[in-house]
Amino acid sequence: MPSMTCINGIVMNDRTRKLVVPDPTDPRLTEKVDGIDHEGNTVTTSVTVERPLTLFLNSREIVTMMTICDYPEYLAVGYLVNQNMLSAKDRITGIEYEKDIETVVVRTAAETDFEDKLKKKTLTSGCAQGTVFGDVMESFEDIILRKDVAIKTSWLYSLVKAINSMPSLYLEAGAIHGCVLCHEDNVLLYMEDVGRHNAVDKIAGYMYLNGIGGEDKIFYTTGRLTSEMVIKTVQMGIPILVSRSGFTAWGVDLARQVNLTLIGRSRGKRFIALAGEERIIYDADTEAALGEASRFGCKGASA
Amino acid sequence: MPSMTCINGIVMNDRTRKLVVPDPTDPRLTEKVDGIDHEGNTVTTSVTVERPLTLFLNSREIVTMMTICDYPEYLAVGYLVNQNMLSAKDRITGIEYEKDIETVVVRTAAETDFEDKLKKKTLTSGCAQGTVFGDVMESFEDIILRKDVAIKTSWLYSLVKAINSMPSLYLEAGAIHGCVLCHEDNVLLYMEDVGRHNAVDKIAGYMYLNGIGGEDKIFYTTGRLTSEMVIKTVQMGIPILVSRSGFTAWGVDLARQVNLTLIGRSRGKRFIALAGEERIIYDADTEAALGEASRFGCKGASA
Repeated sequence: MPSMTCINGIVMNDRTRKLVVPDPTDPRLTEKVDGIDHEGNTVTTSVTVERPLTLFLNSREIVTMMTICDYPEYLAVGYLVNQNMLSAKDRITGIEYEKDIETVVVRTAAETDFEDKLKKKTLTSGCAQGTVFGDVMESFEDIILRKDVAIKTSWLYSLVKAINSMPSLYLEAGAIHGCVLCHEDNVLLYMEDVGRHNAVDKIAGYMYLNGIGGEDKIFYTTGRLTSEMVIKTVQMGIPILVSRSGFTAWGVDLARQVNLTLIGRSRGKRFIALAGEERIIYDADTEAALGEASRFGCKGASA
Repeated sequence: MPSMTCINGIVMNDRTRKLVVPDPTDPRLTEKVDGIDHEGNTVTTSVTVERPLTLFLNSREIVTMMTICDYPEYLAVGYLVNQNMLSAKDRITGIEYEKDIETVVVRTAAETDFEDKLKKKTLTSGCAQGTVFGDVMESFEDIILRKDVAIKTSWLYSLVKAINSMPSLYLEAGAIHGCVLCHEDNVLLYMEDVGRHNAVDKIAGYMYLNGIGGEDKIFYTTGRLTSEMVIKTVQMGIPILVSRSGFTAWGVDLARQVNLTLIGRSRGKRFIALAGEERIIYDADTEAALGEASRFGCKGASA
């Protein structure tokens, strides 16, 4: 983990477990637009604002992402960490977000291994995605997730209730995914973005910059439990992944390989676990949970 | 459009408007897995199978996609077309899908403009995404969509009813997006995939290889109306885009720039149109549509 206190206004090493949650009242994040409804009436509605953001690692252009751009610095660092382009040994010396030209530059003290690899790779291929993917999969198999971390069903029901009733861009404007970092039955970080990968990358960036480990955490996503979501959760060292959405077969395979607890289709009292089931402790009154779920409804249905 | 009749078993120039719809009984597309439910009982459930597929344009590696891989050839060509890496002047001489090494190679008679550009680009940047994005946006502004194509609300309600009641991987295993190409109130092509962009690319590939124009079509997606979805629809020349999900502000902006009819939050009789409203003809009995919607439910809620 990097050792520093502040880079460009982003507070580092915040070990106080301060809650970061969506701010649907932030005027940069939504826009009012006029249209017509199914009866031909004029209506005004809120829509989520997405912006392109081009990420540079030192002098190298990495990718252009579409994002709500609430935390470009966390997104930038989290993307690089989750793609194995930044490792624990890299020392970040600056993160420069330039709003007008829609870029964010992450600078490191020395050239990263990734930049070095890329120099060789560009001779044979136009895009580095193949290399990166191979690297991520190589390190994936070596990750050991903590076995002594549990998820009680009472925590699960309480977390889902808290997440669904918290103010969010989803409730304000829809068309957005949410990812939530939790500890036991507490919501620690709740990030939203137009793509679920941006939301998880922002959490990864926050964790990296603030020295927060994932080993005792629970990760909740509104998105599907695909291979990519499993890989990113495991990269963060988090042993438990929960979603209200469904599974893909490769997501399940990967979760089983590293014994990640994979809970999907979590709605009301119902869920299905397809990997790492032994971390689940059945302590909840499922009848009571069912009643709560129907009062609070579900988030993510149209995201 | 290319002129050919058959490449590697994919039938070309099918102008009969033959329906292509999901085949949820295809054993390659889903897998049965065991897990436990919310009460600790053992359950067996279906999950969607996703596979990596690495796309080459001639000798150049382009991208690795996660896909259900039901139509790798359509996906490959559609990706290249939608990224402006293939144009109407390029002649495809072969499409080779190699299942064992999870690759698909699209070969053209001559080197494409994209490959030529990429040669220059790799000198300054490791990834070509930036160039491609710029190229797509440049041609976007020049596209003129047909103004004399309408969408009747009776067609819309009938299409949504047909799509929601059609057998699909979504109903079988969830965790999947669907995209549908329609003409008036007829479903022509219905593709599903783990990412909505794959589903739309498969439709684009089918249209390109079969010489089907988009100018009089309606496009339906279960996914959100983001900038990318709007750009891809417009690239296909389709003047009307419908979704049951929400909008992003840039999606709306882009749709207004080229006067794409953008209909979102389409559920039961309800919808909101935020661009190109003049193509909508209000001919339906909305009370009757409401009754139908509640009988058939909605697809895409957890995709």
